[in-house]
Amino acid sequence: MKPLEMLEKLQNGVAGEESIREFYETHGFVQLGEHRLDVGRESRSAVPEVIFGLGKSVDQLREIVGFYVARQLPLLVTKLDVAKGTALAAEFPPFEFNPSNGLGRIGRIAKTMAGSAAVLTAGSSDAPIAEEALGSLDFFGISTLRAFDCGVAGIHRLFASAHEIREADVLIVVAGMEGALPSVVAALFRQPVIAVPTSVGYGASFEGLAALLGMMNSCAPGVLVVNIDNGFGAAAAARKILAGRKAG
Amino acid sequence: MKPLEMLEKLQNGVAGEESIREFYETHGFVQLGEHRLDVGRESRSAVPEVIFGLGKSVDQLREIVGFYVARQLPLLVTKLDVAKGTALAAEFPPFEFNPSNGLGRIGRIAKTMAGSAAVLTAGSSDAPIAEEALGSLDFFGISTLRAFDCGVAGIHRLFASAHEIREADVLIVVAGMEGALPSVVAALFRQPVIAVPTSVGYGASFEGLAALLGMMNSCAPGVLVVNIDNGFGAAAAARKILAGRKAG
Amino acid sequence: MKPLEMLEKLQNGVAGEESIREFYETHGFVQLGEHRLDVGRESRSAVPEVIFGLGKSVDQLREIVGFYVARQLPLLVTKLDVAKGTALAAEFPPFEFNPSNGLGRIGRIAKTMAGSAAVLTAGSSDAPIAEEALGSLDFFGISTLRAFDCGVAGIHRLFASAHEIREADVLIVVAGMEGALPSVVAALFRQPVIAVPTSVGYGASFEGLAALLGMMNSCAPGVLVVNIDNGFGAAAAARKILAGRKAG
Amino acid sequence: MKPLEMLEKLQNGVAGEESIREFYETHGFVQLGEHRLDVGRESRSAVPEVIFGLGKSVDQLREIVGFYVARQLPLLVTKLDVAKGTALAAEFPPFEFNPSNGLGRIGRIAKTMAGSAAVLTAGSSDAPIAEEALGSLDFFGISTLRAFDCGVAGIHRLFASAHEIREADVLIVVAGMEGALPSVVAALFRQPVIAVPTSVGYGASFEGLAALLGMMNSCAPGVLVVNIDNGFGAAAAARKILAGRKAG
Amino acid sequence: MKPLEMLEKLQNGVAGEESIREFYETHGFVQLGEHRLDVGRESRSAVPEVIFGLGKSVDQLREIVGFYVARQLPLLVTKLDVAKGTALAAEFPPFEFNPSNGLGRIGRIAKTMAGSAAVLTAGSSDAPIAEEALGSLDFFGISTLRAFDCGVAGIHRLFASAHEIREADVLIVVAGMEGALPSVVAALFRQPVIAVPTSVGYGASFEGLAALLGMMNSCAPGVLVVNIDNGFGAAAAARKILAGRKAG
Amino acid sequence: MKPLEMLEKLQNGVAGEESIREFYETHGFVQLGEHRLDVGRESRSAVPEVIFGLGKSVDQLREIVGFYVARQLPLLVTKLDVAKGTALAAEFPPFEFNPSNGLGRIGRIAKTMAGSAAVLTAGSSDAPIAEEALGSLDFFGISTLRAFDCGVAGIHRLFASAHEIREADVLIVVAGMEGALPSVVAALFRQPVIAVPTSVGYGASFEGLAALLGMMNSCAPGVLVVNIDNGFGAAAAARKILAGRKAG
Amino acid sequence: MKPLEMLEKLQNGVAGEESIREFYETHGFVQLGEHRLDVGRESRSAVPEVIFGLGKSVDQLREIVGFYVARQLPLLVTKLDVAKGTALAAEFPPFEFNPSNGLGRIGRIAKTMAGSAAVLTAGSSDAPIAEEALGSLDFFGISTLRAFDCGVAGIHRLFASAHEIREADVLIVVAGMEGALPSVVAALFRQPVIAVPTSVGYGASFEGLAALLGMMNSCAPGVLVVNIDNGFGAAAAARKILAGRKAG
Amino acid sequence: MKPLEMLEKLQNGVAGEESIREFYETHGFVQLGEHRLDVGRESRSAVPEVIFGLGKSVDQLREIVGFYVARQLPLLVTKLDVAKGTALAAEFPPFEFNPSNGLGRIGRIAKTMAGSAAVLTAGSSDAPIAEEALGSLDFFGISTLRAFDCGVAGIHRLFASAHEIREADVLIVVAGMEGALPSVVAALFRQPVIAVPTSVGYGASFEGLAALLGMMNSCAPGVLVVNIDNGFGAAAAARKILAGRKAG
Repeated sequence: MKPLEMLEKLQNGVAGEESIREFYETHGFVQLGEHRLDVGRESRSAVPEVIFGLGKSVDQLREIVGFYVARQLPLLVTKLDVAKGTALAAEFPPFEFNPSNGLGRIGRIAKTMAGSAAVLTAGSSDAPIAEEALGSLDFFGISTLRAFDCGVAGIHRLFASAHEIREADVLIVVAGMEGALPSVVAALFRQPVIAVPTSVGYGASFEGLAALLGMMNSCAPGVLVVNIDNGFGAAAAARKILAGRKAG
Repeated sequence: MKPLEMLEKLQNGVAGEESIREFYETHGFVQLGEHRLDVGRESRSAVPEVIFGLGKSVDQLREIVGFYVARQLPLLVTKLDVAKGTALAAEFPPFEFNPSNGLGRIGRIAKTMAGSAAVLTAGSSDAPIAEEALGSLDFFGISTLRAFDCGVAGIHRLFASAHEIREADVLIVVAGMEGALPSVVAALFRQPVIAVPTSVGYGASFEGLAALLGMMNSCAPGVLVVNIDNGFGAAAAARKILAGRKAG
Repeated sequence: MKPLEMLEKLQNGVAGEESIREFYETHGFVQLGEHRLDVGRESRSAVPEVIFGLGKSVDQLREIVGFYVARQLPLLVTKLDVAKGTALAAEFPPFEFNPSNGLGRIGRIAKTMAGSAAVLTAGSSDAPIAEEALGSLDFFGISTLRAFDCGVAGIHRLFASAHEIREADVLIVVAGMEGALPSVVAALFRQPVIAVPTSVGYGASFEGLAALLGMMNSCAPGVLVVNIDNGFGAAAAARKILAGRKAG
Repeated sequence: MKPLEMLEKLQNGVAGEESIREFYETHGFVQLGEHRLDVGRESRSAVPEVIFGLGKSVDQLREIVGFYVARQLPLLVTKLDVAKGTALAAEFPPFEFNPSNGLGRIGRIAKTMAGSAAVLTAGSSDAPIAEEALGSLDFFGISTLRAFDCGVAGIHRLFASAHEIREADVLIVVAGMEGALPSVVAALFRQPVIAVPTSVGYGASFEGLAALLGMMNSCAPGVLVVNIDNGFGAAAAARKILAGRKAG
Repeated sequence: MKPLEMLEKLQNGVAGEESIREFYETHGFVQLGEHRLDVGRESRSAVPEVIFGLGKSVDQLREIVGFYVARQLPLLVTKLDVAKGTALAAEFPPFEFNPSNGLGRIGRIAKTMAGSAAVLTAGSSDAPIAEEALGSLDFFGISTLRAFDCGVAGIHRLFASAHEIREADVLIVVAGMEGALPSVVAALFRQPVIAVPTSVGYGASFEGLAALLGMMNSCAPGVLVVNIDNGFGAAAAARKILAGRKAG
Repeated sequence: MKPLEMLEKLQNGVAGEESIREFYETHGFVQLGEHRLDVGRESRSAVPEVIFGLGKSVDQLREIVGFYVARQLPLLVTKLDVAKGTALAAEFPPFEFNPSNGLGRIGRIAKTMAGSAAVLTAGSSDAPIAEEALGSLDFFGISTLRAFDCGVAGIHRLFASAHEIREADVLIVVAGMEGALPSVVAALFRQPVIAVPTSVGYGASFEGLAALLGMMNSCAPGVLVVNIDNGFGAAAAARKILAGRKAG
Repeated sequence: MKPLEMLEKLQNGVAGEESIREFYETHGFVQLGEHRLDVGRESRSAVPEVIFGLGKSVDQLREIVGFYVARQLPLLVTKLDVAKGTALAAEFPPFEFNPSNGLGRIGRIAKTMAGSAAVLTAGSSDAPIAEEALGSLDFFGISTLRAFDCGVAGIHRLFASAHEIREADVLIVVAGMEGALPSVVAALFRQPVIAVPTSVGYGASFEGLAALLGMMNSCAPGVLVVNIDNGFGAAAAARKILAGRKAG
Repeated sequence: MKPLEMLEKLQNGVAGEESIREFYETHGFVQLGEHRLDVGRESRSAVPEVIFGLGKSVDQLREIVGFYVARQLPLLVTKLDVAKGTALAAEFPPFEFNPSNGLGRIGRIAKTMAGSAAVLTAGSSDAPIAEEALGSLDFFGISTLRAFDCGVAGIHRLFASAHEIREADVLIVVAGMEGALPSVVAALFRQPVIAVPTSVGYGASFEGLAALLGMMNSCAPGVLVVNIDNGFGAAAAARKILAGRKAG
């Protein structure tokens, strides 16, 4: 039986025992050392498996990156520090590491999305996380636009980008400190707003907790929040929003 | 100048001083005692102004509800306790109070959305917040379906509803305790997932903090989180997602 | 020696042992049961002693209020609940209790301040704390103006009051939920901004913690913060700002 | 139209669409790479835009500093670590870096304030944050005096400086550990007190949280609090207090 | 074998199996229903077993109080609410309940201590906890003196009691809000300082956490801290300090 | 197909689509209004579905209890308050409510376990949670013994019960305040120790957080912890430990 | 008297004074410099003394390791960093250090357990803690099996290992981020589940707090939790569960 | 006037203005650069000024140490890291730095105390903080004894030192992880117990918070707590307890 057909059955719960076992062993995931690469995640959930680089050793990452390089498959690794990222990029030529967003990539997934996402930041210090979102969106085949440094300390800077912002289908708003920008954006624009608190700040920002709580309590209805510094998660949610239009 | 025309200009930042002042005094918001009702919020942000009932006195609420009743306008009031809700419903006949979701309502907003939202709960104790989401979605003109009591302690209960869930455009997943259900749902379905942590639990749930943190840290990419017990916020975000399809 | 002269010496650290002892026993404070009323606080610190009503028994309060009533002195008691406030007002006619701000008062201090304070709120639910600030300012002889319900979910409501706000010398901004309004106000106006976080909200507002942290981390420089729900403290600080113009 | 005239209109909300657009593009802020320098912030809010050095890369800072150097404009950059500060100072001669307060500066803003600020510390370990406040005040054209090491473990050290402290118009009190000094100062002096909690301490100081909470709960009315280690914010608030006397 | 002899052996670890078993059954503790009354605690640790009233049902307390009443033994029960305390006092005449400190008592332990303890409070609202300490000290046979309402908002009120305070052997300092008084007291007096944070305050006092953290971080060396609202614990520690002079 | 056979297949992942659907509709869970009763949980996981009473309305509970009563099935409902428990017991005769442990029960599950569990408490105030554990163990068919009031303030009280404790197969140790007892027990006995922190205490116990953290950090290896006040959870874990002896 | 006999008496509380003193000095523990090695811990509590490497200096560790090496006794040291571990392994040949799990070992304890434990992880980043559990289990003489990378983002990866998992007697489930896997495992399998939260994650994972709280609040009854990153503790508990079958 | 006479007057509040000013300038404290050395602290409060080394620059410390060296006065500096401590010791020969306790010292204060203190630790990892206490006690002229590694995981190790412990006048108990040892000690011995929580542990110890909360909630009455890792503070409190016997 062909993988895609099987996956479809699997997703629908329509699969006999033997075929399930066989499928899992060959297609449901790939057993790679101790790793179980979830190769069916994209067709099942609209977001492919992406490798979380934090806390993995270089040896673990080498095993995974080598697998993708050998098969010429697209790959995204997040939260790579410079030492790991540089080492992997040196060893595996098609693997590119970008120190400004902590992403390691091979190519881009095939299925490009219709629609676009705008990424806004409150301040220039939020740029690394915004770049993580932009790089992930690009990997997901989603076109992007950017409006950085629009925080409420000079709110007219936001108004100046209003026309461009209205063109996008999803708004990703990246802000540290008190994290007030998503409230203002959600109240002025019609699109869904994905708020990304950042750890930018000090003292009572408590590594982004202040921004996170602020966004959670937005007085503007409908602000959606992801983890602190989780630019990738915002991009993944954008993909589900755009993909979800014709639910699977 | 006509309100809608003016609003359009306002939204585009195209309006001279005199007309701005005139507009604000008559159309930008309604000054009602100390309240400033933001009547343009729906056309500006896709979500109309909804009254937050918690912490308002009955006198404050009477002033607001009376205004809407007199003008026969649709109205949604959230987080009403039984004493306030019953008193208002008794005084203002078209205003209906539902003690099972804490919502007070007059009618439904005119512009019905295409698309639908499914509301899932982990357990039966999460029902009041799920009902708040369902009632708000209904007020917003969004059709709904429900799959309650699907938590991971008996995950096959989720699988049993998979077909219906796949029909919806947005998934709202309501869970207390450890809040694990949104991760599982986001990993199995393609649609955007709005996770609502609830204060269901005790001890180290810390009034919903455990569920909130769990959802924030979901290993399934793309889970979007709103405030603890914020069923209304999830519905508002769903409206922005559905409305946002043709941004603008 | 006359009290004021003595107090002056005391404040300058110029006073012999015997006179200090004598003064303390008669003028430095009033020993009233176990209470030590700090009658010199206003001339020393610009803010008179104000009685904190929370956590005091009715018996304790009766002792204090009776003292002031008997001497026809101005008095402010904060954070009184309705039971205590009503009981005291019934027993001591010149003592007035206002349930909407939790203040009990006798008159107003003699020395009126030049200058004025504007009290802004983000939402109508913040009114009780704003009223506490307004009542305290009035007790301190400071003229006030008010602009309620100006939160960032409809930021144009703030712009509409800009002219009046510019007339005031100090801005007190009262906000719950994410507490974003003080940042916006501090960035648009020249006056000092005293931010009062309120416990309005639920879930991850954690009884006002979210607003407090947000205000602490304001990206607009110069926001000054007082305790959650501390409308009185904001008024006291306003008095010091206005009084402080000619220090000493 | 001339920038200052335009800015005035803008601040008053009196500006037609075309001129707003034109203004924003040339004068409302400066688009410098991804940065949007808010050049109108001083005339609007009494505090000029100051660059937050923490979390910005040297490349980002080089772009900004170079802009100011080229135009011979005054500039303040806060929270610079030694590596960044030294590199920038070496590359841009008029830019001076002071490692003892983490500030990088070019000159001083033109409009000098009448009035002065005293900066007190509880202990010698609080000096770096006090120096940040003093350097920022100097940049703002405010004259300063200092009284360090006056903490409550030897409260007579405070009394010894009482005469000088009475000369200042605003008191900035910097304290770590339990942060008790601002309460004592606010109770003894008439001027407004800006309390700066520091991260000095260990264990249950939780990086300054103990001092922050202490200051928030001061039993002496009218203590105003800024973020942990935010010497700059205290200086900015002092400027608003001094500037606010004749509100703009 | 006689109880005291046995206890001595027990404390020294010198006791054979059979005698240990026999002793435990008769003297080591009293099995009373599910309770195990630790009758040897005073001779072992200088502080007798005291019953913690919070969280015990009236039935549980009745069982215990009845035991002591029947044997005419001294007894202290702490943290009794008015309902429980009144019911027990009505049923067991020698048992006295004092609603102002939450203590229920029968008599006083026989072995009176040399030495005395002073109990200071920052404000009048701290009185109930100070009274719990005073009542417990009295039960322990320790003579007391009191100096209430000496907080740092009017620090001269503390100085006025300095002579009396110097007479005591141990200082118990009870303070809520920012909890600054113990630091000032420890720096001015030679005696050991036991600091009792109280839950007096609101907002960011977080039920006494601010005072607790403040006392923990005292810049005055040697401040000793007990639990929030633990007046009894401070009295017990005072007893150990006084008893400990000739360690057992 | 017979339920048990089917369940076996299901657990092994061996079941075709049609039979899964059919099974789920009849045997996998019972759809009862919005509830999905997980009737297969015991054979799958060794612990039957137990109803969490907290946060469910009386109407929801009535629906569930009625179902079990009608079918004469054993049932356990936890965390019932007195109002709900009494109402249900009055309406459904075989349903018994015990206010001292908050449990509502019908009978006892059929499959009795070999082995026994001892439930220890540190103090008498921990009794309600210990009783919840004991009642749940009894419902699970596990024989129990009890040793209450053995806390470290009189550690010889623990030693006195050592012989009985050694007879049990699992030790459940219930303690509030600092929660030290599980460490001592785990270091003295060979059996697995399940530690249950309780909310007994006040102030810095933070509703059981202190005990929870203490147990988490036990210096005695192998202490296992459940949620604060979760006596039921400890009993469920004991059942898995006893049942797990012959896994699967 | 022989050590084992004595120990037996000691455990039973049956030992005269002289023999206790003598025993303690020779057999109850070993005084090694300032260390007191608890050599009787295994026979008393089923888990031998294991050395906690974190926070000990190399000198302290050298003293301990040398003692075991000289006597050819089995030894386990946990939480060793690479510098310490490598230094010790170089100096003491039979001592082996494994940098992937932070364990230093000499051999394995003699008494092998019947039964086995399965160690599951949610993701590959959890491997170091899982390896700490596996290495400790091996030291304890417990046979193991492993199923890594089974997290709920691809829950079918868990199902694929179901057969092997059913073979084990105890399940140790290691998970960071939201920590949802133990709930799913406890609901699907009959064995006791020991959940190990890890510090894998970032932002609102707060170094493992999110996972810890999630596991504490599991909706699947009977999940048992150990400290964050405490793989060793899970292994120790497994040993007690397996040893406890025939309680000592 | 002579310093000691003057100090006496000052402590008694008996001093005219001129003499106070003169005294302060010469004797009340020493102005050394920005430092104000509180030379009268010992005679006033029983504990001399001790320099807090954390957060002071080497330049600040050099200024202070040089002052003491030049005058041949005793000095204690706490919390010195190795780099600072070594640099200072190299530059100022009589200044000795001990890296195992972080203390830098010159000599010992003259007035030796009668009485002694025992320092106990739960584990060997707590040694550095215990050594800080021991070194500080020695500087204060208090004789000491030590009993390390007595934690509750092997409680008989404590019993073995019972005789020596009974000889001391004050007990300082140093413990990390769950911090249970002070409860056990306070229940077994008559002397005052000063509990020092340490940051030894990991995960949910939260840098010593677990131990701190545990000690705060001790079920054994009379445990007194100082800050996490504050060995010095425990020694200072011991000095006040011993000095306080004949209160000053």
